[in-house]
Amino acid sequence: MRIVLDGMGGDNAPREIVKGAAEASRLIDHEICIVGDGERIGSLLDEFEHDANKIGILHASEVIGNGDSPVKAVRRKKDSSLVKGMEAVRAGEGDIFISAGNSGAIMSGGVFVLGRIRGIDRPAIGSTYPILGQDGVSLLIDSGANAECKPQNLLQFAVMGSIYAKNVLGKEKPSVGLVNMGTEPGKGSSMVKEAFELLEKNRDGSKGVNFIGNVEARDVPIGVCDVIVCDGFIGNVILKMTEGVALSISHLIRRKFSEGLAAKAGAALLYNKLGELKKAFDYTEYGGAPVLGVQGAVVKLHGSSAAKAVRNGIARAIPFMENRVVDTIKCAME
Amino acid sequence: MRIVLDGMGGDNAPREIVKGAAEASRLIDHEICIVGDGERIGSLLDEFEHDANKIGILHASEVIGNGDSPVKAVRRKKDSSLVKGMEAVRAGEGDIFISAGNSGAIMSGGVFVLGRIRGIDRPAIGSTYPILGQDGVSLLIDSGANAECKPQNLLQFAVMGSIYAKNVLGKEKPSVGLVNMGTEPGKGSSMVKEAFELLEKNRDGSKGVNFIGNVEARDVPIGVCDVIVCDGFIGNVILKMTEGVALSISHLIRRKFSEGLAAKAGAALLYNKLGELKKAFDYTEYGGAPVLGVQGAVVKLHGSSAAKAVRNGIARAIPFMENRVVDTIKCAME
Repeated sequence: MRIVLDGMGGDNAPREIVKGAAEASRLIDHEICIVGDGERIGSLLDEFEHDANKIGILHASEVIGNGDSPVKAVRRKKDSSLVKGMEAVRAGEGDIFISAGNSGAIMSGGVFVLGRIRGIDRPAIGSTYPILGQDGVSLLIDSGANAECKPQNLLQFAVMGSIYAKNVLGKEKPSVGLVNMGTEPGKGSSMVKEAFELLEKNRDGSKGVNFIGNVEARDVPIGVCDVIVCDGFIGNVILKMTEGVALSISHLIRRKFSEGLAAKAGAALLYNKLGELKKAFDYTEYGGAPVLGVQGAVVKLHGSSAAKAVRNGIARAIPFMENRVVDTIKCAME
Repeated sequence: MRIVLDGMGGDNAPREIVKGAAEASRLIDHEICIVGDGERIGSLLDEFEHDANKIGILHASEVIGNGDSPVKAVRRKKDSSLVKGMEAVRAGEGDIFISAGNSGAIMSGGVFVLGRIRGIDRPAIGSTYPILGQDGVSLLIDSGANAECKPQNLLQFAVMGSIYAKNVLGKEKPSVGLVNMGTEPGKGSSMVKEAFELLEKNRDGSKGVNFIGNVEARDVPIGVCDVIVCDGFIGNVILKMTEGVALSISHLIRRKFSEGLAAKAGAALLYNKLGELKKAFDYTEYGGAPVLGVQGAVVKLHGSSAAKAVRNGIARAIPFMENRVVDTIKCAME
């Protein structure tokens, strides 16, 4: 199968993207096609050890930047790496599209170039949420694509998220929770109350949603369920709060542990453990975020991804492509 | 002035409430009137050292529990500690009402017993949000009272929050931020976009809101602004995520730091620092949450408050009462 990689998207493109692809080419069994400025990508490839049989280049003369308006950019920049890459997937010349570029443009491209899956009103971004201190992850959907949602959007997120969690994250019968202000039924905004009703109705039915009810934000970090369903605004707040609190605590630890000799000695003895703690917070370990609901596998990498995050993102995207998640979602929605 | 304390509200009532009040009576210059089962409270008071000149009891025969429906309970349990306490404040026999009881009932009681301030459509709960690693706090408003909000509610939260931050938290010209999915204007749901416009219009105007624009959830823990404005659903997610992430990290630290001899020795050397870390996460240090928008000063304590949290909650509520925050809000809304 062939992975199509946006060579020009992200804060560290093209260098770190190409470097990550070069590293991935030596680890995986699939081809990687890097889309973007052919000359620059070619000369960067010369710098990094790679498997030449597994890397190709598709030239694209334009770039969609973070400052570009997503919808306009996708419509006008027909020769951008993002549009050309998605067109390659649509044409069957590639099996998955991966980009660290403009998130809005990735969503717009998904809708305008690949098209929505019939029955999905709003595609969503699912983020793999690391369960702190464990190897597992949950899937948070929507993690930021849709600031406003209707109850049926949340049901669709639950269906897509369950399929992804089963086929990519290896959860046998993924449990689905709805983020709410309390666990009791009847909590929350009218939208969330209606979503609760819809999820209850579709529990264990043809759509196969293993709905466990409301979950509180407090329990998200401990992995209270496999698929965490919410609108994109809440999803954004969950992700950003995780990042912000973890960062604040790590700064505080660093400061406290360098106050005085005893603390410094203690910190030295804990050097490895502190490294392991840091690793637990490291998004680069967890790969990218699947865009679900469009007619093609699409993965969004963090905009600041360096080579390691790109390499891991490629490696972790493989089951999304191999296990035909998009086709399974299509079938479920019919 | 007189503080009216709900002796029967909360998971540890009445014992820990009475204990906290006894401790507070020896520290503060105001009277404390404990409302609830007179006999039980009286005999508990005998157990704990207190200043008898500063503690009184107001008997109430009923209790509103956490399982009670807030609106019904407030209407029907006329002789509950919550309703009688609020009535005392309304009648001018007390200057502030403090309770660790049923949050919904505290809000309902505020509206039905004390009444809304004219010009405030929805009272809100403001939570003092500790800025990790610093002594400061921000005010998060609404932190959970209103699952659904209109743009004008958010403007009103900003006005009330600014007045509270200035008069209670000692912020000279409190900066106000709107929680959004990104800092650029034009982000977010239509409600939040409209709230942004309203806040912009009222910036530095007669309502005196020092609006600094959108803030991301990531920056809340570092104290990006003095008053964090959002609807109660988002506010709930922010508080609960802070709690959940901090708890997960502290579990992870505890586990990592007990793996192996070197780690254990390091942790022993860091004993004091770990204690300081723990203290930074401790909600009992920060007092209660003001209910803003009703015609009386009301403070909600955490339901699981023990004596120390009650004592601190009483002590920290004093400027809310002394500085006539409710009157200032009334004036601002006229």
